[in-house]
Amino acid sequence: MSAKKVKVFAVLGIPVIDGPADIAELLISALSRQKTPLRDGDALVISHTLVSKAEGRVVDQKDIQLSEKAKDLAGRNGFDPFQVELALRESREVLRTERVLITETLYGLVCNFSGVDHSNAPAGGYVLLPLNPDASAQRIRESLLHRTGLHKLAVIISDTQGRPWRKGSVNLAIGCAGISAFKFNKGKTDLYGRVIERSTVCQVDEIAAAAEHVMGEAGEGTPVIVIRGYGYEDGSEHGRDIPRPKTEDIFR
Amino acid sequence: MSAKKVKVFAVLGIPVIDGPADIAELLISALSRQKTPLRDGDALVISHTLVSKAEGRVVDQKDIQLSEKAKDLAGRNGFDPFQVELALRESREVLRTERVLITETLYGLVCNFSGVDHSNAPAGGYVLLPLNPDASAQRIRESLLHRTGLHKLAVIISDTQGRPWRKGSVNLAIGCAGISAFKFNKGKTDLYGRVIERSTVCQVDEIAAAAEHVMGEAGEGTPVIVIRGYGYEDGSEHGRDIPRPKTEDIFR
Repeated sequence: MSAKKVKVFAVLGIPVIDGPADIAELLISALSRQKTPLRDGDALVISHTLVSKAEGRVVDQKDIQLSEKAKDLAGRNGFDPFQVELALRESREVLRTERVLITETLYGLVCNFSGVDHSNAPAGGYVLLPLNPDASAQRIRESLLHRTGLHKLAVIISDTQGRPWRKGSVNLAIGCAGISAFKFNKGKTDLYGRVIERSTVCQVDEIAAAAEHVMGEAGEGTPVIVIRGYGYEDGSEHGRDIPRPKTEDIFR
Repeated sequence: MSAKKVKVFAVLGIPVIDGPADIAELLISALSRQKTPLRDGDALVISHTLVSKAEGRVVDQKDIQLSEKAKDLAGRNGFDPFQVELALRESREVLRTERVLITETLYGLVCNFSGVDHSNAPAGGYVLLPLNPDASAQRIRESLLHRTGLHKLAVIISDTQGRPWRKGSVNLAIGCAGISAFKFNKGKTDLYGRVIERSTVCQVDEIAAAAEHVMGEAGEGTPVIVIRGYGYEDGSEHGRDIPRPKTEDIFR
């Protein structure tokens, strides 16, 4: 038995973009410059900020008309009213409005401010989440496969979000392609040879978490991280399937 | 600027233990056999199952007297009544009892069944969480520092737990020593040079998540993972400080 080894490293030299861009192209150039071309089996974690900007999901404050609801919510909580307005527009349900603004986004994520953020946004701008993070991941993955001739790549689009019971944010997966969101341990045996009845692990959230420290949350300029040696399988469940459906979520 | 690189690898050859054991001793022997001695700056993620067993936190089913409350809760939900009984004994508050049994443990963690589990437990046994995971981490760390002569090591004790809004479990930190539970990005600048107002990341949860896939949840026999090259700081907040206090937790 040999030890499984996983390596996590950043892709340096990806330029700051403020408009439409071809992420696969930027990525392959940068990887080539640092002499670490992609290999079959690599997983890439990409900060949603880069994807959103490349997809034009940035809104300028001067183009935002505030609703009464946004002004009211912002006033009561000391929030930025423009961020609240965008969070409401991006949501299909508002779940909590005291101290936090927890929404369910149009895409189905449950998170603070619908993921609308102004850090790492151009001056006066707000970055929204990609419209369909699974589809974004799929597009980037297909372009990478096409350009590199590789057969097995995973692309995970990440965002750093808070959690209900635990302090501090963690990086997690909002979309993915080429990798199953989950791995299933059911049927494996434990240390004592007994069959495990159930155990489903959200592997894409764990991979996104593993990438965060190398990626950084501030101005590191390293929005793409390579995870090498992880050993994953593709499957039918992706980012969209991670949030608990309303009927199953007993914590709302 | 050079790329930050993180390596994640397992410690092979740690024996299955069913009673009191010196984890630091087992660890140093195993690392020596595989010729990967610890280095300053390494972080170790240790499955709580190993720690609990070494600390005698295993209960045999035949020694458990069932309460009426445990029988009732188990009967209504189809749970194992012995697991429920232990979960109740290990809890200071029961938060949800439909389909799940979410409790706040005596130590302050909010999790399913107070973390009581029978996978990877000896036949007929249940593994409880360590009584004080931060103290366990601290003891192991001190013993490792003493035996190796190193100065900087982090020890994180992990458990794989479910989340309220998202499907699938992830590995997270229930205790740690030699590393701050959080890293604070406040005061750093973003891509555009603006100062970040607030951003606290739970780095020990991210490190635990990074270790899970290499550790495995089944009978892999690799309960200790080395994370090398992470670059962390110690601080005053540890595992006990991660759960949101009741007054701050607006999701109860």
